[in-house]
Amino acid sequence: MAEQWLTGIDVGGTTIKMAFVSMDGELIHKWEIPTDVSEGGLHITKHISSSLRHTLSVLGQEESVLKGIGLGAPGFIEMKTGFIHHAVNIGWKNYPLKDELEKETGLPVTVENDANMAAIGEMWKGAGNGESDLLCVTLGTGVGGGIILNGQIVHGVNGMAGEIGHITSIPEGGAACNCGKTGCIETIASATGISRIAALHIESNKDSSLYKVWNDTKTITAKDVAISAADGDEFASEVLEKVTFHLGLVIANLSNSINPGMIVIGGGVSSAGETLLMPLRRHFEKFALPRVAEGAQFAIATLGNDAGVIGGAWLAKQNMR
Amino acid sequence: MAEQWLTGIDVGGTTIKMAFVSMDGELIHKWEIPTDVSEGGLHITKHISSSLRHTLSVLGQEESVLKGIGLGAPGFIEMKTGFIHHAVNIGWKNYPLKDELEKETGLPVTVENDANMAAIGEMWKGAGNGESDLLCVTLGTGVGGGIILNGQIVHGVNGMAGEIGHITSIPEGGAACNCGKTGCIETIASATGISRIAALHIESNKDSSLYKVWNDTKTITAKDVAISAADGDEFASEVLEKVTFHLGLVIANLSNSINPGMIVIGGGVSSAGETLLMPLRRHFEKFALPRVAEGAQFAIATLGNDAGVIGGAWLAKQNMR
Repeated sequence: MAEQWLTGIDVGGTTIKMAFVSMDGELIHKWEIPTDVSEGGLHITKHISSSLRHTLSVLGQEESVLKGIGLGAPGFIEMKTGFIHHAVNIGWKNYPLKDELEKETGLPVTVENDANMAAIGEMWKGAGNGESDLLCVTLGTGVGGGIILNGQIVHGVNGMAGEIGHITSIPEGGAACNCGKTGCIETIASATGISRIAALHIESNKDSSLYKVWNDTKTITAKDVAISAADGDEFASEVLEKVTFHLGLVIANLSNSINPGMIVIGGGVSSAGETLLMPLRRHFEKFALPRVAEGAQFAIATLGNDAGVIGGAWLAKQNMR
Repeated sequence: MAEQWLTGIDVGGTTIKMAFVSMDGELIHKWEIPTDVSEGGLHITKHISSSLRHTLSVLGQEESVLKGIGLGAPGFIEMKTGFIHHAVNIGWKNYPLKDELEKETGLPVTVENDANMAAIGEMWKGAGNGESDLLCVTLGTGVGGGIILNGQIVHGVNGMAGEIGHITSIPEGGAACNCGKTGCIETIASATGISRIAALHIESNKDSSLYKVWNDTKTITAKDVAISAADGDEFASEVLEKVTFHLGLVIANLSNSINPGMIVIGGGVSSAGETLLMPLRRHFEKFALPRVAEGAQFAIATLGNDAGVIGGAWLAKQNMR
């Protein structure tokens, strides 16, 4: 049988990650092109199409080897039609992305929210290990996520499902969130949130190893907190204790409702590994029903920046020509 | 074409509700038989089978009119195989219910958790109005629920999905719950929880109309609270304000994750109607993302005790012979 390749595309505000992926999810070739946000992102589909053709020819492959495209983008997307209501960082507004890219490439295109696409990637080839009831939590600048139930992404009635960053963990008196509410878990467990909490309390913890960092740079990053906590610094551990209390509560409450078999923690903050997972599991188990806690394994995401394009390939495979 | 009937069966600790339902979800005939919990519930399938045959003959119908059975039961159920791990109120333990009932009746049987089955009934013919992303919240002695996404019940990895009564709403210092944790929404928003909260504060609210009830009976029911609140009693309204604050928070947090199109409130407490829904919506909107709140309609369950058997008929229809 002739070879069959899938295409995963992860569109960000600065670069577009692209990859050819085998039918069983192995990366064959990956590359990036810059995102041209001029004229409301109107040139992007042309750039993608010519980059696909160019890369195929460099690799000595016919165009017929490609069987479909799965593409992830940030913003409000109508999944069924691949219509982008608004993608602020890219410039697309009321843009029929799926139709345009299908016209340019002649391939079937599936469009998905980028966080969901990364969750699918982790389910297929990463930490999710094929588990079909999966909760992905991404701790980066913000807190994002994706929910997979019965092996399918949960979208909800208007595509907002999985936006777990705006679950309220402090109902009264919490910090202001970018979304306009207060006390969202994003204000606590994102890299920004951890940094904020550390800065808030550092002046009364001058014996912490983080105090020197603070004095030198007037900022403490989430990474600084994780490193100091791993080294046994008491204040840094207290910060992580507070963060994982709230994150454990939020994940347990969601798990009491959807009963996932696997909880994958990704994003920059997840590089803290067991320093984060250990207190997180402890708080999670306090708030989860015993049978729910039994069923749920925790894991750190393993695919890093490749999760998106691999998830895209999975989507392409579901919708092959 | 010959007539085709579906059978819905709702097994409780005291009675078994049974119904014949048309292919489009209309009740044709409903009746009840007592639940025989003797000998670990071993006689139940025989009783069901003979009651089906008897009722058919009374109605002058051939057995061939029945196309399948959907049955709901409380307890830990393995949905795929219809195996009951444990149903405390019935007596079944490690019992292959689906296999046994199929043997007795010669019909295909689908077994489901009773709360989920009621949610399906409301989706199909009740307040859910066909909405395929649906959250059902049942406020009775306890707090239960069912989650339907893409028109399918969410079970999770070990059948615990939808057990929303044990979402923690008061992480520290909450009341003890039957599940062993503290601060679960069940301790606040169930009939029992509302009654508990009212009793806790009544002695410092002697001007409330509820004080006479308390003095007479040493108990205040959730219904008492709802009636007094509807009459404008300040203390009763404060109790409902507290209850709906927590319930609104829990429903909003879950909705921020699964983005339902419809939220159906059922169970005894839901008979309070707008007295309950008005403050509930207000708190919900405070904690839900605007786009999530826009997408979510609230409704009071309309099928009452028939929700289970109608949901059972829906399940039977999915799995007809």
